[in-house]
Amino acid sequence: MVSANARSAEQFWLVRNSSNSNAKVHMDNQQIILYAVPLSGVLALLYALFKASWVSKQDAGTEQMVVIAGHIADGAVAFLKREYKILAIFVLSVAVLLGFVNSGRPDSSPLISLSFIIGAICSGLAGYFGMKVATKANVRTTNAARTGLSSALNVAFSGGLVMGLSVVGLGVLGLSSLFIIYSNQFSDIGQVINVISGFSLGASSIALFARVGGGIYTKAADVGADLAGKVYEGIPEDDPRNPATIADNVGDNVGDVAGMGADLFESYVGAIIGTMVLGAAFLPVFNEMGINPIAGVILPLLLAAVGIVVSIFGSFFVKVKEGGNPQTGLNTGEFGATFIMAVLSYFIISYTLPASWIVGDTTYTALNVFFAVLTGLATGVLIGLITEYYCSTHNKPVVNIAYQSVTGAATNIIAGLGTGMMSTGLPIIVLSAAIILSFNFAGLYGIAIAAFGMLSVTGIQLAVDAYGPISDNAGGIAEMAGLPKEVRERTDKLDAVGNTTAAIGKGFAIGSAALTALALFAAFRQQAGITSIDISEPVIMAGLLLGAMLPFVFSALAMDAVGRAARDMITEVGRQFNEIPGLREGTAPAEFAHCVDISTKAALREMILPGLLGILVPVVVGFTSKDMLGGLLAGVTSSGVLMAIFQSNAGGAWDNAKKRIEGGIEFDGVLYGKGTEAHKAAVVGDTVGDPFKDTSGPSLNILMKLIAVVALVIAPLI
Amino acid sequence: MVSANARSAEQFWLVRNSSNSNAKVHMDNQQIILYAVPLSGVLALLYALFKASWVSKQDAGTEQMVVIAGHIADGAVAFLKREYKILAIFVLSVAVLLGFVNSGRPDSSPLISLSFIIGAICSGLAGYFGMKVATKANVRTTNAARTGLSSALNVAFSGGLVMGLSVVGLGVLGLSSLFIIYSNQFSDIGQVINVISGFSLGASSIALFARVGGGIYTKAADVGADLAGKVYEGIPEDDPRNPATIADNVGDNVGDVAGMGADLFESYVGAIIGTMVLGAAFLPVFNEMGINPIAGVILPLLLAAVGIVVSIFGSFFVKVKEGGNPQTGLNTGEFGATFIMAVLSYFIISYTLPASWIVGDTTYTALNVFFAVLTGLATGVLIGLITEYYCSTHNKPVVNIAYQSVTGAATNIIAGLGTGMMSTGLPIIVLSAAIILSFNFAGLYGIAIAAFGMLSVTGIQLAVDAYGPISDNAGGIAEMAGLPKEVRERTDKLDAVGNTTAAIGKGFAIGSAALTALALFAAFRQQAGITSIDISEPVIMAGLLLGAMLPFVFSALAMDAVGRAARDMITEVGRQFNEIPGLREGTAPAEFAHCVDISTKAALREMILPGLLGILVPVVVGFTSKDMLGGLLAGVTSSGVLMAIFQSNAGGAWDNAKKRIEGGIEFDGVLYGKGTEAHKAAVVGDTVGDPFKDTSGPSLNILMKLIAVVALVIAPLI
Repeated sequence: MVSANARSAEQFWLVRNSSNSNAKVHMDNQQIILYAVPLSGVLALLYALFKASWVSKQDAGTEQMVVIAGHIADGAVAFLKREYKILAIFVLSVAVLLGFVNSGRPDSSPLISLSFIIGAICSGLAGYFGMKVATKANVRTTNAARTGLSSALNVAFSGGLVMGLSVVGLGVLGLSSLFIIYSNQFSDIGQVINVISGFSLGASSIALFARVGGGIYTKAADVGADLAGKVYEGIPEDDPRNPATIADNVGDNVGDVAGMGADLFESYVGAIIGTMVLGAAFLPVFNEMGINPIAGVILPLLLAAVGIVVSIFGSFFVKVKEGGNPQTGLNTGEFGATFIMAVLSYFIISYTLPASWIVGDTTYTALNVFFAVLTGLATGVLIGLITEYYCSTHNKPVVNIAYQSVTGAATNIIAGLGTGMMSTGLPIIVLSAAIILSFNFAGLYGIAIAAFGMLSVTGIQLAVDAYGPISDNAGGIAEMAGLPKEVRERTDKLDAVGNTTAAIGKGFAIGSAALTALALFAAFRQQAGITSIDISEPVIMAGLLLGAMLPFVFSALAMDAVGRAARDMITEVGRQFNEIPGLREGTAPAEFAHCVDISTKAALREMILPGLLGILVPVVVGFTSKDMLGGLLAGVTSSGVLMAIFQSNAGGAWDNAKKRIEGGIEFDGVLYGKGTEAHKAAVVGDTVGDPFKDTSGPSLNILMKLIAVVALVIAPLI
Repeated sequence: MVSANARSAEQFWLVRNSSNSNAKVHMDNQQIILYAVPLSGVLALLYALFKASWVSKQDAGTEQMVVIAGHIADGAVAFLKREYKILAIFVLSVAVLLGFVNSGRPDSSPLISLSFIIGAICSGLAGYFGMKVATKANVRTTNAARTGLSSALNVAFSGGLVMGLSVVGLGVLGLSSLFIIYSNQFSDIGQVINVISGFSLGASSIALFARVGGGIYTKAADVGADLAGKVYEGIPEDDPRNPATIADNVGDNVGDVAGMGADLFESYVGAIIGTMVLGAAFLPVFNEMGINPIAGVILPLLLAAVGIVVSIFGSFFVKVKEGGNPQTGLNTGEFGATFIMAVLSYFIISYTLPASWIVGDTTYTALNVFFAVLTGLATGVLIGLITEYYCSTHNKPVVNIAYQSVTGAATNIIAGLGTGMMSTGLPIIVLSAAIILSFNFAGLYGIAIAAFGMLSVTGIQLAVDAYGPISDNAGGIAEMAGLPKEVRERTDKLDAVGNTTAAIGKGFAIGSAALTALALFAAFRQQAGITSIDISEPVIMAGLLLGAMLPFVFSALAMDAVGRAARDMITEVGRQFNEIPGLREGTAPAEFAHCVDISTKAALREMILPGLLGILVPVVVGFTSKDMLGGLLAGVTSSGVLMAIFQSNAGGAWDNAKKRIEGGIEFDGVLYGKGTEAHKAAVVGDTVGDPFKDTSGPSLNILMKLIAVVALVIAPLI
């Protein structure tokens, strides 16, 4: 109940106990530093701009390459524009509604609409910038790969870095500016935080639509292109003559780049806001102590600001010598940045927070807050390593799926589903330990800051993630433009090395999502004034069941959408091969635009229902009973984390089992490779895994936070 | 906190306020009636014996039929004997441990070991009797089907009825006898119920092992037999020459008959005990009122006793005229019994409970308790109808999966998974409404009695369920014995009509499992003296996550086991076809026994780990923190219900999509039927669905109750 501890705006900035002049100086410094936070956001954006213009200046290669890349870029931008038009209507409607229900109330303000709109715009911009540069970087990576690996890595990673820095830059700039403005506007920190939580709501809702829409787009094209070859005789899969190929490459950009950007933007913002809300609980005690009362609130912003600088610094180490392994550079950059950030966190926390303080009968220390951050980092790394164990080509689970493919698609599917379900065990044990540990270190604030700890160097983490689809696209362009084999080999090498870092990134995404959802849950409980959410109460148990059901229904909607859209795609590909003379022989061009159109329309049509589900269900349940909403949050979090891990890992394992067979496996003395029945079975698994790992799975991380943020925003109203 | 309301044994039976002499007479009558409850159990067993001997007396047909049926019966009994030997060690170990930790404590007693052993034995006996008769009824059904449908139905249903009545007979006899004995032994009703809960623990642990072991057995043989044809050229699937066929038929008996019997025995017992525990909370108030203080405790026993009589009565209506539809008879029997039981419940409840009473600030009425029972019945029927909607051959979901098979196995699998996930939506909404409604009618007691309401006519429900695998077996025997086509057609007709009633039965199983788990959960909270399980507490949230994870890991273990065992089976079938001259041509017999042995060993080996998981995890978590155990129970219930519905319905839908294609479907002007690529794709889905719907899915209903019962049993110790 933050609002019960209302303090005037002056109190934030003035020391009550003026006899303590050292504290005053310290606090004044903290205020000045707070004003420097938005500058770090500006720095990130300027550096992103610099990198973007550098990428643009690189040579895009042959005329054919430019034409192909142009198709991809046009398709991607066209999709994003249409998507944003629809989302604009949604954002404006919600903003009006938010403004209306929050006006004329003492504990909330219609300004929450402004936060919401700015959050949505920042999320959209981050996705747009990142994707715009990615669609330039792809072809330039291909061209660079014609001469060597080193410069190709440089172009691809620079493209990814623009996305990474756009996300953190817009996140920090938006959040910190709003915080400074609202702090001068409102007298109650509770109200400041309530109003600012609209920013997170904006980010989360855009993220859900972008992830689901992008995921449907990319998988409809991917699955459709792959299966067309099965259904109609003589249509080549994975071939430039296949009319769905351009749509497939567009999909990589709108799904894996723009969608992921919006996703991480919301994670980043959600984790910061979750920590800010819970940090407000220290306000009265800090005030008494003559310490900056909002030290706990601004700590995540300060960490984020330093994280930006560290990310940029880390990016300098991402290099590879000709003939060297690009993995080394990526590892040095990402793990180096993470390590430096961990060390710097100690100093930032010690500087910002008092050595120790007491709330109720709990003693907090700055050192323990730091330990909570370390707990978060360790959790992310561990979940990432476990993820890699279950999904990597060399380990037992994937090898087992490959062996099970020998007896056909059914055993391949059973093995993959089993692996995905089994792979939930260890991460959940790690996560449960992390919850208890970080709580013991620093209460709910500890859980929140542990979540943010994993995301403090999102700038470089996301750069590494986005580098993957750029390299993937570069390979596709090399193939379509008919470039020599070694070009494709180089881009494949680039694509492959991101695996470990990507797995760690996935671990951070899942771990931070779960902890952030918990932090937001706790924040909701505080704001709604609920003292206990007793799960043995029937109404709360009903909420728990309803919440646990949502990820299932949500996943079903996403998968059905992919299935339907893929079938439209297959039909269209078949039509073109039958109706366009010369297409089969490669003498006439395919009508790429039709396929792009099918994916675009399907994605836009099918993203609406699951997106609305995430927003409307908590509102309806919340206004029915706030206790039931508490149960709903617990249910959606627990079931969401599990379904996300299950689906992501099953998908990853199927994908690599297919690759494993392509590399050749021996079973009972027989060698199975590409083109064998075992390979065909593994392709079935891979196709099933596509919507699992790229559509429904990652969307669940957003869904559980979105529902928690919706609950937090409506908390004062129910 | 029942134990806080300790009353002496005399108080149970004597009226405190002796001025109320009418009440005394009424109460004395209730005592006499209580003593009649075990007699109803005896009645059920006698009638089962009568039916069993009638089945045995029927003609078993040709010599070849007798030989084949002999193989099946021998394999089934051999498996059960080996399974029970292993379980005996387990039961004795746990009994010693239970006796040890419960001795020398004021609030518990080593007699709990006795209850545990008796519960385990009753469960084992129910499975054994039922299966023994089923393995006689199968061939006699085949033989009866040679002359007509009517007598075949009679034999098959009589076989099922033996199972149904064995389950309810042993359940009621065991529970009520123990209750009467313990009530004379202990002065505290809390202690009586604690000691008697061992019975439920025994039933649940045997059930989990039996379900998992039986499920692995049957699906290893089924999947193995089906896939052998794929892997080795020229091996016929579904053909009597296939050496895995006998194992497949044995599997139907050990999995679908014995496994299901143990399953329903534990549901039945669990629901009764859940209601008894919560009914004890009325004791002090009833005592004050001069009413039989344990009226709320004995009510479920009285309902169960009447339910037995109603079930037997209902069984008289299961008949079919030659040329008629057997569905009508089954419907009349089952729905008739359910309806009569609902009406009788009103009178039993009005007679047993006072018209109204007040506990704390809640007013209870007998009428509202009756409404809670009706709520349970409506919930079961609704969930059943929804299940049927998603799984029936004629409805949109299954037709859609059939269409998606045209584009291959991958889209078939995606559609099936999507359907399974989507199908969780409505049942969960119904269930949540039922929780809230039945709680509003009669508090936690209302939830418990709603669960038992669904199971009160288990006798006839289970008869209808067990009738399915008997008819299935009968068809297999007809095929293997080379009987004329019309025999198989008649048994197929018998098998097919049970669908709606089986779906309703499934709805009752899921609905009652969820409500019983909640009732046991509430009972645990009472017994453990926990006032609130606040889900926003981190340690409870960690428990929630761990609990939600268990059904995933458990399902993975079950599916992996099926996958591994199926591969062994495939290898063995291939070996026989290669090494036995004349097998392929049908001139030499297959070595059935080897395949039976593979299934047996695999089932016994692989059931251990998942079985122990269900028992050890709650013990370990409970002794770590009882709050975390509370979270664990909530997690395993919510995630268990969802995974159970998801897996059962996905499996059912895949199964029927295959059948739908076998019936012929038209898509885009092309007709697809048996043998087409679409059919092959549908077979993949059906095979994936096998372990889903027959191994992991139904085991989860048991898992969540077992964990709750373990928690309840260890509650006084932690």
